[in-house]
Amino acid sequence: MATDSVSIVAAAHSRFGRLTDATLEDLIVDVTRAALADAQVAASEIDALFLGQFNSGLVPDGFPASLMLQADPALRFKPATRCENACASGSAAIQAGINAILSGSAELVLVVGAEKMTSNSTVQVTKALAGAGYQHDAEEAGLSFSQLFGLAAAQYEQLYQSPLSAMAAIAAKNHANAMANPLAQMHKVMSFEHCNTVSESNPYIAKPLRLTDCSLVTDGAAAIVLASAKRARQFRREVAIKGMVQVNDFLPLSQRNLLAFEGPQRAIQSALGKAQVTLEDLDFAEVHDCFTIAELLIYEAMGLAPQGQGHRALEEGIVQHGGKLPVNLSGGLKAKGHPVGATGVSMHALAFGQLTGKPIGLAAPNAEFGLLFNMGGMAVANYASVLQARRA
Amino acid sequence: MATDSVSIVAAAHSRFGRLTDATLEDLIVDVTRAALADAQVAASEIDALFLGQFNSGLVPDGFPASLMLQADPALRFKPATRCENACASGSAAIQAGINAILSGSAELVLVVGAEKMTSNSTVQVTKALAGAGYQHDAEEAGLSFSQLFGLAAAQYEQLYQSPLSAMAAIAAKNHANAMANPLAQMHKVMSFEHCNTVSESNPYIAKPLRLTDCSLVTDGAAAIVLASAKRARQFRREVAIKGMVQVNDFLPLSQRNLLAFEGPQRAIQSALGKAQVTLEDLDFAEVHDCFTIAELLIYEAMGLAPQGQGHRALEEGIVQHGGKLPVNLSGGLKAKGHPVGATGVSMHALAFGQLTGKPIGLAAPNAEFGLLFNMGGMAVANYASVLQARRA
Repeated sequence: MATDSVSIVAAAHSRFGRLTDATLEDLIVDVTRAALADAQVAASEIDALFLGQFNSGLVPDGFPASLMLQADPALRFKPATRCENACASGSAAIQAGINAILSGSAELVLVVGAEKMTSNSTVQVTKALAGAGYQHDAEEAGLSFSQLFGLAAAQYEQLYQSPLSAMAAIAAKNHANAMANPLAQMHKVMSFEHCNTVSESNPYIAKPLRLTDCSLVTDGAAAIVLASAKRARQFRREVAIKGMVQVNDFLPLSQRNLLAFEGPQRAIQSALGKAQVTLEDLDFAEVHDCFTIAELLIYEAMGLAPQGQGHRALEEGIVQHGGKLPVNLSGGLKAKGHPVGATGVSMHALAFGQLTGKPIGLAAPNAEFGLLFNMGGMAVANYASVLQARRA
Repeated sequence: MATDSVSIVAAAHSRFGRLTDATLEDLIVDVTRAALADAQVAASEIDALFLGQFNSGLVPDGFPASLMLQADPALRFKPATRCENACASGSAAIQAGINAILSGSAELVLVVGAEKMTSNSTVQVTKALAGAGYQHDAEEAGLSFSQLFGLAAAQYEQLYQSPLSAMAAIAAKNHANAMANPLAQMHKVMSFEHCNTVSESNPYIAKPLRLTDCSLVTDGAAAIVLASAKRARQFRREVAIKGMVQVNDFLPLSQRNLLAFEGPQRAIQSALGKAQVTLEDLDFAEVHDCFTIAELLIYEAMGLAPQGQGHRALEEGIVQHGGKLPVNLSGGLKAKGHPVGATGVSMHALAFGQLTGKPIGLAAPNAEFGLLFNMGGMAVANYASVLQARRA
């Protein structure tokens, strides 16, 4: 069945960063109200609500779905559900919203992604995120995600060549892009040389990953309003979800080839196929650069370059601002920030801006098609979406 | 749109109790394999998987959806998603499965509910469950669920009369029913007198709730296979989901009347309406007796008795085994056990047995219609389903 009968008709996005005064509830409530205001619909018109949040110990709120109802008394008695797929929880909530609409049970759906991370120490955050690893193998359970992606970078060097300079180029690009994004967590130019040099201000986090290869610990939230084809016509702006595909892989690392990124590849290629477009048709992409090595591997999964040659997408300028297919104009998880459960919704909310001519930050001029790729764990829960501009 | 176009075609159910040797992964894998075997379908035929699990600190596995894929290599690359709505997480997963089928994106869906609780101390379990309360009010966040339902029982006495003897009758009934259920956690006759008397073996847990008013800490899992109307015809057995309704209420207690149970009432009445049946048509009900006072309030939400008179449903024998509308023939959460994220799926799995003439435990002879009610928090996430026998 065609998923292009669901559209995004409004969006909202908080500032990303260390939002000391905001609780998880504040983040959820503010972005819910902002999305309703952006849609210019009454809360009573919303048929169902979905929340993407990872949690895993980041906050004590173990049952957050109904917190969305706190935004407006008219939301009382609406169905509200939390969806979780680690760092792709936001996309899991969007997928659930799409299914609710295509099922015929809802015409207008609010999807929120939110995460409150900075009230924890770095040790606590690392522990919570490690909950997204496989727990039933002592060795794997003991790995942090930076160690895990560090392992992938080391394997990449063994199999092909050192990915470190490409990774530094990715970091420098995404930091530069974030300079224009007022909602990004970091606004600091980071030169390629800085990112490519281990130093006191850029130490190893998990060899060979350096500080600049890692995304951030972030508080933030984003929301979108989804509408059925029929209902979408009544909105001023419309961006169609031409294809959204979810592919889950095995959780244990031991059952997978780390570098193959098979789940991402299948999700992306299948979403492109569903939308009946090729890479040539895309005007921009926002992809899951939780670590710079991940963005490099995603270039290869997209087909921008053969396996082991992702660096060419950088060297040829393809993925740069102004290039043929700019990647992470927002600054990406690397510099925009990565409030894990919010990230998938953030990608869709920012793409809505791009495709309706009101980008937050750098523009992909006259963009018609955008590709979004959000993942949970290391290529375990993979979601790719192709969006098309309809009405600005 | 009619939800009766989704059916249950197979089910599986673990033993409930203290399953010391089983990890969360074991519980999920075993029940997934058992459901596939019961359906007599190859794993490759499953289009999507949904998992209900609450967690909130019970286990370190913060990203469990892909654990379902561990059951069979052919599940690799299928979409798998965790849904959470506290103790109604199992029903949240079922609702997501129904939407996936009605959306046209899936024909055959596997839904698993699982929870591993007993590897924690009582203090840890109480803390994890308290994560389902409202965290942004210090007073509410400090309440355990037994204190909360104790408050409801105290308010009931103030407004109507003491509910304690009705609560004891519910405990005695559910323990008696569980005697016939080989999968139940407790197999022990508990007399009305024992349940209605505070003693060394039946102390106050949270006044006026006694030990026998509280459900159990349980490990367990259940699974069902859902099929589209078209696909269901190819299965030997079929139970139609005639109506499933989800209603969420505000999380903070301060915004609600505890005794009104408005969310449960709306969900149940709306599910009955959707299925075009009345209480008279029902042959059995399984309802969320996390505390005996909850079952009493659910009688009133169902309309079995006016508010404040739920005890009449017991006195008149309506809800007893052999009565007009037996409630919790399985033993209920009270005696069958309550692995929180599994409970909603357990209700549907056992109802599948009842409605295909192979009950696990006590029978509702020649049953055609069953009502299921599962809730998260105190009447916060409310799911009611009406099931109808199609083919045994």
